[in-house]
Amino acid sequence: MIETGTMEQMLRPTADPAWLLATEGYDPLRESSFESRFAISNGFLGVRGGRAATRGARWVVPARTYVAGLFDKSDAQHAIPELIPAADWMKLRILLPGGALIQHPGDVSSHRITLDLQRGALLSECSRLKAPDISLRLRTLRFVSLSDRALGLQLIQLEIEEGEVEVTLEASFEGMNLGLASVQIDQHVGVWRTEHSGKSIAMASGSSLQVDGHDLFGTALGQLKSSWSWKTRAGQVVCFERSVAIVRSDVEAFNPAAAAIEKLGAARQLGWHGVTAAHEAAWASRWLLSDVLVDGDASVQQALRFAIYHLNSAANPGDERVSIGARALTGADYHGHVFWDTEIFLLPFYIFTWPEAARALLMYRFHTLDGARAKATRMGWRGALYAWESALTGAEAAPAQAIGPDRQVIPILCGSQEQHISADVAYAVWQYWQATGDDRFLREAGAEIILETGRFWSSRAKLEADGRRHIRGVIGPDEYHEDIDDNAYTNVMARWNVRRALDIAALLHERWPECWQSLASRLDIGEAELKQWRIVAESIAANPDPKTGLFQEFSGYFELERINLADYAGRSVPMDVVLGRERTQKSQVIKQADVVALLALLPNEFAGETGAENFRYYEPRCDHGSSLSPAMHGLVAARLGQSEKALRYFRKAAAIDLSDTHVAIDGGVHIAALGGNWMLVVLGFAGLSLRDDGIGVDPQLPAAWRSLSFGVQWRGRSLKIRIDQEKNRLEATLESGAPMMLVVGGAPPRELRQGNALQVDLSAELAPA
Amino acid sequence: MIETGTMEQMLRPTADPAWLLATEGYDPLRESSFESRFAISNGFLGVRGGRAATRGARWVVPARTYVAGLFDKSDAQHAIPELIPAADWMKLRILLPGGALIQHPGDVSSHRITLDLQRGALLSECSRLKAPDISLRLRTLRFVSLSDRALGLQLIQLEIEEGEVEVTLEASFEGMNLGLASVQIDQHVGVWRTEHSGKSIAMASGSSLQVDGHDLFGTALGQLKSSWSWKTRAGQVVCFERSVAIVRSDVEAFNPAAAAIEKLGAARQLGWHGVTAAHEAAWASRWLLSDVLVDGDASVQQALRFAIYHLNSAANPGDERVSIGARALTGADYHGHVFWDTEIFLLPFYIFTWPEAARALLMYRFHTLDGARAKATRMGWRGALYAWESALTGAEAAPAQAIGPDRQVIPILCGSQEQHISADVAYAVWQYWQATGDDRFLREAGAEIILETGRFWSSRAKLEADGRRHIRGVIGPDEYHEDIDDNAYTNVMARWNVRRALDIAALLHERWPECWQSLASRLDIGEAELKQWRIVAESIAANPDPKTGLFQEFSGYFELERINLADYAGRSVPMDVVLGRERTQKSQVIKQADVVALLALLPNEFAGETGAENFRYYEPRCDHGSSLSPAMHGLVAARLGQSEKALRYFRKAAAIDLSDTHVAIDGGVHIAALGGNWMLVVLGFAGLSLRDDGIGVDPQLPAAWRSLSFGVQWRGRSLKIRIDQEKNRLEATLESGAPMMLVVGGAPPRELRQGNALQVDLSAELAPA
Repeated sequence: MIETGTMEQMLRPTADPAWLLATEGYDPLRESSFESRFAISNGFLGVRGGRAATRGARWVVPARTYVAGLFDKSDAQHAIPELIPAADWMKLRILLPGGALIQHPGDVSSHRITLDLQRGALLSECSRLKAPDISLRLRTLRFVSLSDRALGLQLIQLEIEEGEVEVTLEASFEGMNLGLASVQIDQHVGVWRTEHSGKSIAMASGSSLQVDGHDLFGTALGQLKSSWSWKTRAGQVVCFERSVAIVRSDVEAFNPAAAAIEKLGAARQLGWHGVTAAHEAAWASRWLLSDVLVDGDASVQQALRFAIYHLNSAANPGDERVSIGARALTGADYHGHVFWDTEIFLLPFYIFTWPEAARALLMYRFHTLDGARAKATRMGWRGALYAWESALTGAEAAPAQAIGPDRQVIPILCGSQEQHISADVAYAVWQYWQATGDDRFLREAGAEIILETGRFWSSRAKLEADGRRHIRGVIGPDEYHEDIDDNAYTNVMARWNVRRALDIAALLHERWPECWQSLASRLDIGEAELKQWRIVAESIAANPDPKTGLFQEFSGYFELERINLADYAGRSVPMDVVLGRERTQKSQVIKQADVVALLALLPNEFAGETGAENFRYYEPRCDHGSSLSPAMHGLVAARLGQSEKALRYFRKAAAIDLSDTHVAIDGGVHIAALGGNWMLVVLGFAGLSLRDDGIGVDPQLPAAWRSLSFGVQWRGRSLKIRIDQEKNRLEATLESGAPMMLVVGGAPPRELRQGNALQVDLSAELAPA
Repeated sequence: MIETGTMEQMLRPTADPAWLLATEGYDPLRESSFESRFAISNGFLGVRGGRAATRGARWVVPARTYVAGLFDKSDAQHAIPELIPAADWMKLRILLPGGALIQHPGDVSSHRITLDLQRGALLSECSRLKAPDISLRLRTLRFVSLSDRALGLQLIQLEIEEGEVEVTLEASFEGMNLGLASVQIDQHVGVWRTEHSGKSIAMASGSSLQVDGHDLFGTALGQLKSSWSWKTRAGQVVCFERSVAIVRSDVEAFNPAAAAIEKLGAARQLGWHGVTAAHEAAWASRWLLSDVLVDGDASVQQALRFAIYHLNSAANPGDERVSIGARALTGADYHGHVFWDTEIFLLPFYIFTWPEAARALLMYRFHTLDGARAKATRMGWRGALYAWESALTGAEAAPAQAIGPDRQVIPILCGSQEQHISADVAYAVWQYWQATGDDRFLREAGAEIILETGRFWSSRAKLEADGRRHIRGVIGPDEYHEDIDDNAYTNVMARWNVRRALDIAALLHERWPECWQSLASRLDIGEAELKQWRIVAESIAANPDPKTGLFQEFSGYFELERINLADYAGRSVPMDVVLGRERTQKSQVIKQADVVALLALLPNEFAGETGAENFRYYEPRCDHGSSLSPAMHGLVAARLGQSEKALRYFRKAAAIDLSDTHVAIDGGVHIAALGGNWMLVVLGFAGLSLRDDGIGVDPQLPAAWRSLSFGVQWRGRSLKIRIDQEKNRLEATLESGAPMMLVVGGAPPRELRQGNALQVDLSAELAPA
């Protein structure tokens, strides 16, 4: 039996408005953007925030459900894999004698949709819905469970205000014949398979309806469709509940129907309140570890919560065979493909707040290592060259052509030339290992990634007449410039990668010699090769100009045309669209943080004041033509003490998904920009850094912020850090784990122990040495 | 019985490649563009060039059929009307024992789609289609009849090359539940209705299949779905034919099912070859009157044929209740709404080659006059202010907001401020009447339009302290500048409109006094009002600068920031996107021909050399941010003798729909740009003009053209004109009708009679006076 009182409570959003994001009414122009922004996800299932109960019969696209890893190709040979949405399991119609209650979302007055960030749930409310003979209130809730990722729940409550009419509530699935081939669709379960990738999914569904607390028998209409009919009366309360269990199968032989039915059975045994309680507990635990509190800037607080909500929604520590696409599971842009975004912009959040999720994401790269090796071999190099766009197998999934912002068909060279991805993956592996001390991961997966990518770069950099090794014909993070030589980001990251491969070889050899022997033998790495790597590491052309300390973004960059971007301040499109591709390629205009990204990732490569020099040179040359760019600039600005500029970058990045003047997020939220903003705040404003002997914090908060608090996971420990700017004090608390060292500003390391909170006077610590 | 030999012939495209436009293979990026470019239409039905037989099961959007006038609103109150596509009546699947023969268009090798411009038909061919046990050739044809616009036909021929398998051909409709509400769907007929506009359509369909010339009985599967099964053998020829009859009802009481069934029955009685013969004869007759031949430039010839094909496809002389939307019936952009495009860019083609179509288009404006009167009244003026975007009733259908090219949500003020539309409609009425001498139309409809629009302008222009009447708060054709005062185009056209209203009043009074009495009484036009119009006509601020001869585009324009557009030569987006809306509004950058359009429409308003002066001033300030702009500039350039520049404008306009580097036509062909290019050639290069005493021709061909030939309809006469540049000679032939006067260049009028072709030596005629 549905407990009406509990449901009543469930359908109310969290009381504190700082946890809520809402929109009212119906705005067809922005509907798609809201569907992305208000998406719910648990890293396995993603459901866009489309209307279910208030959608009406036609006109509006259904809310499709994305299933992580459910890729297919549109033909066997040529096409690239695409994430295929599953059917909408939430369709609902309320039928009155004169027809459907809602024909169109525009018919619904006073409609409010609320994303409850704290509970990971989407709620809606129609305060008074009127038809000729009836007036009612409608409230809905939906979530996909963070506790058991196979489960989704939909709750609907109707309160009849007046009217006695025969009403039918019809619950069904929609879009059952789009994209996937249906294998079987019965009353309670449907099975679909992909055309070419050998995957299938089952969706089992059960529902119930109560009128004033009493169960009503429904009519089974077949094919996942049921209906309930009753007569309304004033004051009546009707509760509808539908659960879905979704199981993906990766092998053709395994029909997932039975597993989905079993999952659903267990969930219905537990009851919707039990499922909800487990889901909310899982969210509470994620927030406990990952929430960031900003006192003194409500809009930053909301944008951060929004970012952390989507970051927590995007990952699944239980599935090593998938990673996070450029729009997570919130939209169709980039077809669910995985880019460097994950390793460089998302991993820091997971490493420091959710190491289990970080590990699964890196294991995806381990499982796709064969694809990376095959790509390197095919292109004539050794080791592993990761796919610029990765999907199921690690085979390159970048399209050969795409439609540009001006509707021009343009060739996409990234799939063959944007090779820094291999160093980016190695970088994330190293960071994860440094932060977690997860030696087992290193031995079983991480080492092989770093060795194989290091090997790739060693074969890739070619010795030339000048005695140095060059990496020619690449694209750096700045994608305006294609087929360039010696991209600073690429070369320095490559050198770093080769050096870490040498470190790993030495470390394994020393600490786990059997592991090293087995790995070296399997990968066929001998002393001669290690020696060659050492030579490569010393001779890659990857040094700044000795006079100015400036890295040249790539060979010949300094000689290109200087464009004064201030002259183009009014533009609302990237500069390559303004100047044309050809002229942009011949100019110094940069699409996104490139040398600046290098400064963010490897600050130690920039001696003395040269970090600031490089930022001063490159920042005005960047037009932020990528959503990845502003947060990365903000991170560097914050570390350089330019806090107000950094804050402007934060707001610029936050606006991408939260501004209503643009509707650029129809295709999903920009999860890397969200991850970048977490980095900007925690690694930038708080100055969190990894050190050999512990962690470092070096705060530089914007002037208006009163305090900043956040949690950190480090080598099995849980810390809370609070920077109180009013009192100019840092408080650090070790909540679990063995004692550790904390370095604040330029001061000597301090020991941090459980039960012994550390209070550091920042005015002393941050004073010039 | 289907005559195999005849079908064989039917499925071959016209032999002369100058009549064909083709594409091979499958290119997902360009598929939507090709669907627009290869659309077939007869002004009542429009079918996009999507695949039917080679589409496979999923993935690709079906080829929807547009029905002229089938508008609906997505809710009763707020939304704007949209053209709602009907179901796809051409879906076809070929099923083998192992599954469908084609799963995806990419599976099909050597696929060729050909648009046969001469026959108004779309053909396709798969030269060899292979499955494990069978190999076959597939050819298809489709058209919607130009002879009976309710009818569509689909022909499919399968030639089995090898393989003996059981095969099933399944023919069905698709998308039957999208957009429209289904009322009944039986085996042979479906009826759908709109939600809010009270319209319905019926689609009746019949089909047959023959194997080696023998009829095969099909299986009726209900709901417009049938199938045929047989066993293949090498050499077998299978012919499938499907007809559809579509009837629209504009009143709720009338169910169009019976009419559609009757139409279909008559067509099937006639047989598909009879239907085809009538359709092809209708196209032959259209080409006879409208073809334009360019000798010496094959690409111009093809682009012109393409333009004329779509112009002939877009109109329907039999339906006065619809007009031509901005994308005709080839795509969904602008929701099928009618703009000034029709009157200014399309009407000249129809007036001079298809007066019956022109008349129906103007009658649409007559039938929507009440909507225009209501809009004027609502805004506080008198007379008739036509909707900037018009759909069913003439009520304003412009949206309040739209998504800009950079995904920004921008307000749309055109619906209230772009008022020149009223003068544009009056202009087209006058041109039609001048060219056709259709006095009956003038008396019954045209006069009322010109009087009511003239009355609008007379109330709109307000007397101010300077003694002149000003029209403030408008948008001219140059939509970069909003809420401006005294737009030259608007004011001069308004003055022209008021003057023609006075002319019409005088003419009716003199020639048809009873008609005038009745009209003047119904419209309540008295002598006092006519007197006021005369004052207004004299005092509207609509004169050029007396010193320079330049019209100022609007008040204050000359003081705005000058932007050198050459500095932005590489850009691939309009200048408002580059500079931002705000700065663009404060600059002299012009979106499209504005004063230049005035020069094109009313050249006599530009004394002496001032036409050339104005063009010299305004041309470099225009960024052609509208597809309407290049052809209008080309027309003016051609008349000014700048033939090579005009030719560049022709190519620029033609590229909009024909270039494959951009894919900007997913939403339909730019019918106004196509009409504009016809104008550029006939009114520009040939210099065709209307005169009181006949027609004028004043040729200025591009140097490389050997000759230009075209037909003209004038006051019940049919002429052919040929300009032979090699011989520097013009040939004019009167093919039907009474003798008339022809003025070539600056020479005195010559008489033209049937059977007495005129040959004029252009070197003499065009010599400087």
